[in-house]
Amino acid sequence: MNYRSALPLANVRLTRGFLAERTRLVRDVVIPYQWDALNDRVPGAEPSGCVHNFKVAAGEKEGKFYGLFWQDSDLAKWIEAASYRLATHPDAALDTELDRLIATIAKAQGADGYLNTFFQLVEPQNRWANLRDCHELYVAGHMIEAGVAHFRATGKRTLLVVVQKLADLIDRTFGLGPGQIPGYCGHEEIELALVKLARITGEIRYVRLAAYFVNQRGQQPNYLEEETKRRGDKLPWHMYFDGLATLQAARPVRELTEPVGHAVRQMYLLAAMADLAVELNDDSLLRSCHTLWDAIVRRHLYLTGGVGSEPYGEKFTEPFDLPPDRAYAETCAAIGVIFFARRMLDVKLRGEFADVMERALYNNVPSGISLDGTKFFYVNPLELIPAVAKRRYECHLVKTQRVGWFGCACCPPNVARLFASLGEYVASQRPDGLALHLYTEGDLRFTAAGTEVRLAVRTDYPWTEEVVLEVNPAEPAEFTLYLRIPGWCRAAALAVNGQPQSLAPVNGYAELTRAWQPGDTVTLTLPMPVERIHADPRVATVAGQVALQRGPIVYCFEEADHGANLAAVSLSRSAPITARHDTTLLGGCVVLESTAQRDPQSPSLYSTAAPAPAIVPFRAIPYGLWANRGEGEMRVWLRES
Amino acid sequence: MNYRSALPLANVRLTRGFLAERTRLVRDVVIPYQWDALNDRVPGAEPSGCVHNFKVAAGEKEGKFYGLFWQDSDLAKWIEAASYRLATHPDAALDTELDRLIATIAKAQGADGYLNTFFQLVEPQNRWANLRDCHELYVAGHMIEAGVAHFRATGKRTLLVVVQKLADLIDRTFGLGPGQIPGYCGHEEIELALVKLARITGEIRYVRLAAYFVNQRGQQPNYLEEETKRRGDKLPWHMYFDGLATLQAARPVRELTEPVGHAVRQMYLLAAMADLAVELNDDSLLRSCHTLWDAIVRRHLYLTGGVGSEPYGEKFTEPFDLPPDRAYAETCAAIGVIFFARRMLDVKLRGEFADVMERALYNNVPSGISLDGTKFFYVNPLELIPAVAKRRYECHLVKTQRVGWFGCACCPPNVARLFASLGEYVASQRPDGLALHLYTEGDLRFTAAGTEVRLAVRTDYPWTEEVVLEVNPAEPAEFTLYLRIPGWCRAAALAVNGQPQSLAPVNGYAELTRAWQPGDTVTLTLPMPVERIHADPRVATVAGQVALQRGPIVYCFEEADHGANLAAVSLSRSAPITARHDTTLLGGCVVLESTAQRDPQSPSLYSTAAPAPAIVPFRAIPYGLWANRGEGEMRVWLRES
Repeated sequence: MNYRSALPLANVRLTRGFLAERTRLVRDVVIPYQWDALNDRVPGAEPSGCVHNFKVAAGEKEGKFYGLFWQDSDLAKWIEAASYRLATHPDAALDTELDRLIATIAKAQGADGYLNTFFQLVEPQNRWANLRDCHELYVAGHMIEAGVAHFRATGKRTLLVVVQKLADLIDRTFGLGPGQIPGYCGHEEIELALVKLARITGEIRYVRLAAYFVNQRGQQPNYLEEETKRRGDKLPWHMYFDGLATLQAARPVRELTEPVGHAVRQMYLLAAMADLAVELNDDSLLRSCHTLWDAIVRRHLYLTGGVGSEPYGEKFTEPFDLPPDRAYAETCAAIGVIFFARRMLDVKLRGEFADVMERALYNNVPSGISLDGTKFFYVNPLELIPAVAKRRYECHLVKTQRVGWFGCACCPPNVARLFASLGEYVASQRPDGLALHLYTEGDLRFTAAGTEVRLAVRTDYPWTEEVVLEVNPAEPAEFTLYLRIPGWCRAAALAVNGQPQSLAPVNGYAELTRAWQPGDTVTLTLPMPVERIHADPRVATVAGQVALQRGPIVYCFEEADHGANLAAVSLSRSAPITARHDTTLLGGCVVLESTAQRDPQSPSLYSTAAPAPAIVPFRAIPYGLWANRGEGEMRVWLRES
Repeated sequence: MNYRSALPLANVRLTRGFLAERTRLVRDVVIPYQWDALNDRVPGAEPSGCVHNFKVAAGEKEGKFYGLFWQDSDLAKWIEAASYRLATHPDAALDTELDRLIATIAKAQGADGYLNTFFQLVEPQNRWANLRDCHELYVAGHMIEAGVAHFRATGKRTLLVVVQKLADLIDRTFGLGPGQIPGYCGHEEIELALVKLARITGEIRYVRLAAYFVNQRGQQPNYLEEETKRRGDKLPWHMYFDGLATLQAARPVRELTEPVGHAVRQMYLLAAMADLAVELNDDSLLRSCHTLWDAIVRRHLYLTGGVGSEPYGEKFTEPFDLPPDRAYAETCAAIGVIFFARRMLDVKLRGEFADVMERALYNNVPSGISLDGTKFFYVNPLELIPAVAKRRYECHLVKTQRVGWFGCACCPPNVARLFASLGEYVASQRPDGLALHLYTEGDLRFTAAGTEVRLAVRTDYPWTEEVVLEVNPAEPAEFTLYLRIPGWCRAAALAVNGQPQSLAPVNGYAELTRAWQPGDTVTLTLPMPVERIHADPRVATVAGQVALQRGPIVYCFEEADHGANLAAVSLSRSAPITARHDTTLLGGCVVLESTAQRDPQSPSLYSTAAPAPAIVPFRAIPYGLWANRGEGEMRVWLRES
């Protein structure tokens, strides 16, 4: 199981709504589309070479390795996503396709368990020689996650045995014992994968290996420093500012007090630390998780749930340095935020963990994928002027429109595996019942007080305020439903079978303990006024500006609705804002409408005349749905006047 | 003469005030300091190697070339500055030092006239082989400017003959004739130098050579493209966005409609184009000058008079893309703006040319040099948060405090030669009198109606509003004084001998024609209310913000007065602002004072509560004097509330 408390995917059926729509898109469009991409069959998209590389390594095909040295991981993530899909929507053709692919992978694996097509085909002599840059353990981690997911979905051990053999090789190779390499990967990932492997196999040594990787990181003598000296090379460009701290490897992980370096790596490390804190009851690791959580949420988180404000090296920078136009906010990093948050919910049921998870899930992550499921963003800025972004170096990684694939294609399959496994994020099985984190229409099955319970969720959240739960235990049973009261909600109301209940959430969750009867209904009302959000003024780039949020949805405004030069538009502090459900726009969503002021263009570049703004109509759309109406300007933060 | 209409430097004595103080600083501190720097005698500063290189090339010393391939130009610019100093302040020791240095340079020159220590000492085989990158003609241009300045200051031909020999070699080598190289330099500079050489020698062929370089630029077949192919190399990184347009070499110069590429190069090219338009009465070139002038002033000019908003390649970008924190606004580029503006005043007496010249001269350029004259900025941002600038790649060329020297040290000697020759910018000799562009205390001598006129300027401009001119013709004479009415001034008043005069400026200049008597006085009053400046909203990064200006001085506010997090401070639209002359602060200046609002820090990163600002005292100082009180935040643009 990915998360200790997650319901099995087959027990969560998401039927309708914003998140379910993305899950459907992944199932029906993205997974087949990415399979084509991984097989280099998408015209116009950058080639992947993934399947090709494995066929060559398996001796099924002649040819050369194509791509970057972490290329295998794209395929691994896709297998993981496809397996999640099989878990919820059995599909014989996909099942067979996976069997065939897994047979190739198994054939490609070395006799000793080694599996990495770059090092097998291109640099066999350099195996494990450059842990700093070469992502070997990262790639192995993704393959392990794929093996675990495939086994859980299908019950087949075909890929699981491959990845166990690989994990066993790694276990033998790395560590502080005689003859072992006292190293760890420059890109974290193997750690959380090993925890998953341990959970599915029951083999505690995989947890110990993960703990070794986490604990050894940044210890003196510094392995990556020694390795660098041994090779006689220099730190690569992306370590310009932070050196080995780019890889969270300058100091032991328990000494970190601010997030540092490459954002995805930092988030994956934290996810693994949270896993290990739970598995090993490791208090010092847990304290570090809390410290870093607080640092990220208080000083480093974009309003959209993204992290990483420095494109040069895809990194965290200084506290409060969150420029909207230079946001990197990589799709993978926001997914990493979700991984960390979901694991922290296994540490402790605390509303803030789910709030942040929801923020990333409804905003930064859907920005990463087009409405039709075939195009992707890697970078998700909070402000874009296309002509400027195309011309300024610090924006040269920003795409002004989503693209079909990337040379470094980490994000698209990451989105796929996240949405395909969304059921694991919706709720947590609790010893005494169930905690519901995300409200989205569907049906859940879980066990409480020894009884199987079916829970029907009826809602049009996040567009509407009411969530109706129908509780159907197989037979009457006493248990607790923990219902998340979102942090953004200030006047939630609760009724059971039409009877209002007093609401005193504990740590952000309302606890409803009772002897549940089949057919009991719970009505949760989560009023969603339009909120005007202000950032701490230390976020210098948006001081004096306002962003709009309704429920979990962060809004943006686009050139498609306002013409160019969005910076000329400001919203008065007193302008009333109306939320309107537009069922046709962007697949159906709530738009925010108001009037705003637009400063006129000036006859001279600088003028002593105060601008005399005109009143113009204003419309904001959900940020997660931006850039689906052609190329144009976009802003989340807007001037308040 | 640098400018056709300039008064000889010896005829302009600047005695007191903001500009005179910088001229004095250059004379007393900067020129000796830079002489030490060029001789590698400044502890802690990056070495220069300039004098060393010439001694080695002259055979006076053993050793290797040190530095970049345009290293010689730093020394040439210093010779030019030192010569200007000799013109206004004879100094036997400096004169001798220059003689000695020039003897070395003459010895270093090749028999054919070639002179460039890099190519003489390091790559003799590659002479003229890489015009795109190697700055050979640029370096020659600076040496020619030095030779012209030295001759004009001292009457000695020692360096002039050297540079004429060099110019003659270039004249033989380049052109469209048989056996000639049909190329031009990747970095413009030789063009304007040749015009100066022509003006001092009367040799029109140097103008023709300059015109060849300008006209051939960007013509098909494209020489730099061909040269690149011939070498088989690639365009270097700094041409990432614009290719050969980085060097204004993608199209013929008359086809340019927006400034493009490296800002200093663009400005030097324009300066040469203006020179040639005048020398050759070239209408099409003149039209291009006007088109580019308008484009720069309407869409590409920082409020401080700087240009170049892209650090990556030191370039112009899109119209209105003028982010204050990422301003490159290189000191040399602002000097280039002044060069262009001053030459346009020779094309036409138009106030806007002088307005822009004054803007750069009082703001961007003095920012480039510390109050004590020993430290320099290359990059002059309009907003700085030191911790962020040190951490973001797009700011990695920003220095948060001025430094003693640079590996690429173009700016410090450029500041020196500009301020040392300031007399050439103050006024223009007119056929019928004199035009006064800049008001600064001092004494001018010129000839009008056949009579020598002494003009005493008494003022504490830019701090005070009144300028008193005492006109002393050797004998009574009728001529015209053209007095610039600055564009920022909306209520100028004029009196002659105490009698108020009606004021109807033509093209920004009040014309006073009369039979002048010795002792006549003109009193010009230039009211300087504090102006609130707004940018066109297409300057997205400062939309809704305000900058303060009084007279020609642009203001900024600093951490030294307000503590950190300047973004939290906003100025209400109605706050009255007081100008106060503080004779002790920063060498004496007018500060602007008011009250402002400061948003409190927030307990959470994002909040739905509107900020409740506190009232705080507010003080702004002249931008040109910033960063003289330790490292700290600075902003020119501030939020208006």
